[in-house]
Amino acid sequence: MSGVLYGVGLGPGAADLMTLRAARLIEGAAVVAYPALAGGASFARSIAADLIPADAIEIVMDVPMSVERAPAQAAYDTGAAAIAAHLDAGRDVVCLCEGDPFFYGSFMYLFARLSADYRVEVVPGVTSIAACAAVAARPLVARNERLTVLPGPLPEAELRERIAGAESVVIMKVGRHLAKIRAVFDDLGLTDHAVYVERASLPEQVVCPLAQAPASAPYFSMILLTKGADPWL
Amino acid sequence: MSGVLYGVGLGPGAADLMTLRAARLIEGAAVVAYPALAGGASFARSIAADLIPADAIEIVMDVPMSVERAPAQAAYDTGAAAIAAHLDAGRDVVCLCEGDPFFYGSFMYLFARLSADYRVEVVPGVTSIAACAAVAARPLVARNERLTVLPGPLPEAELRERIAGAESVVIMKVGRHLAKIRAVFDDLGLTDHAVYVERASLPEQVVCPLAQAPASAPYFSMILLTKGADPWL
Repeated sequence: MSGVLYGVGLGPGAADLMTLRAARLIEGAAVVAYPALAGGASFARSIAADLIPADAIEIVMDVPMSVERAPAQAAYDTGAAAIAAHLDAGRDVVCLCEGDPFFYGSFMYLFARLSADYRVEVVPGVTSIAACAAVAARPLVARNERLTVLPGPLPEAELRERIAGAESVVIMKVGRHLAKIRAVFDDLGLTDHAVYVERASLPEQVVCPLAQAPASAPYFSMILLTKGADPWL
Repeated sequence: MSGVLYGVGLGPGAADLMTLRAARLIEGAAVVAYPALAGGASFARSIAADLIPADAIEIVMDVPMSVERAPAQAAYDTGAAAIAAHLDAGRDVVCLCEGDPFFYGSFMYLFARLSADYRVEVVPGVTSIAACAAVAARPLVARNERLTVLPGPLPEAELRERIAGAESVVIMKVGRHLAKIRAVFDDLGLTDHAVYVERASLPEQVVCPLAQAPASAPYFSMILLTKGADPWL
């Protein structure tokens, strides 16, 4: 009997925003796997650190941050092979995933490589979107409102077009694209209706009107535009 | 000192998909509040049932299902007044919310009524979207893909226009709008790429290709269209 691969969403960062199911799986794990920025720490592991058994085997996937895909794909190839070896030996593997595994998560690269040959179960997690809305005190969508989620790296013209036709909008992965996105919001007259959030739910979290966003934003930052009932404005 | 109102996301339905923070707050609650369909059971309460202290005071908001808003608004007025009385007496109130409180959640109606006068903390929860993607084994969005969330009650022409210009799409609140939505997917040639999910994470969950969706869908049903890597197709 092959083992089961669990893709476990850990939520946005605060350890107590993981689900009971995630906590139980991690506490009982014989093998855990997680991505880390090459040469750096793993955010996913840091969220789960207090629950990982001391004797668990750990598979670290060192993922290079590069615009080109091949180096990251090679890291997932290597990680998938290491995971498969444990599954073949009948051991379950718990893969730690920031946020939700299927929402801009790197787990889908393991899923693509392993789901044809092994049983894979995904444990959904709290997304950064839900966490940002909570800490910003901004209801995201109600009734028949539409929600549009856009990655910040999209070209300026596309962002402008998509935001102009939208109701509630979330811009993910703001990071070094902040100035470009800010210019689009300014042009559309929407800056005063938008909120900037970084590292939601963590001690170093930042929440402020977009107009007061810091000059440089980390990768884990987001802009929320909500057109529904708004207690802030 | 007034009490604190907690809007606690419970996730999609399975009790162990609530967060550790949600569980801790419910286990320690002196007062819990939740919506119920008028004359019926409360889905939110059923998710949290095993954790609610036997001696907790329970505030039930009987919300009528009607297209008109006034009856529901009256129910939230009454509920907010009952909650405010406890907050004024210095007691915290834990409001139980299906899914995530700020994602199509009725908690925002309490938030709108009480957040100006009381401290309100929102505990984000796993959304039905994340749960549906997990059980359907469909990664939602990756890299620079866009996600569009549309409520099923939108007019057919608007659904058609929004879906045609989208990448990954989630249709919420399918229910009695299934035939209309199905017609739009058929016209756009997308039916074979879409998945139907109802009651994700619950024992009675249904997951199937949209073409095989049942003739009548419950309110808690969803259609997923993902254009990314797709292991199903």
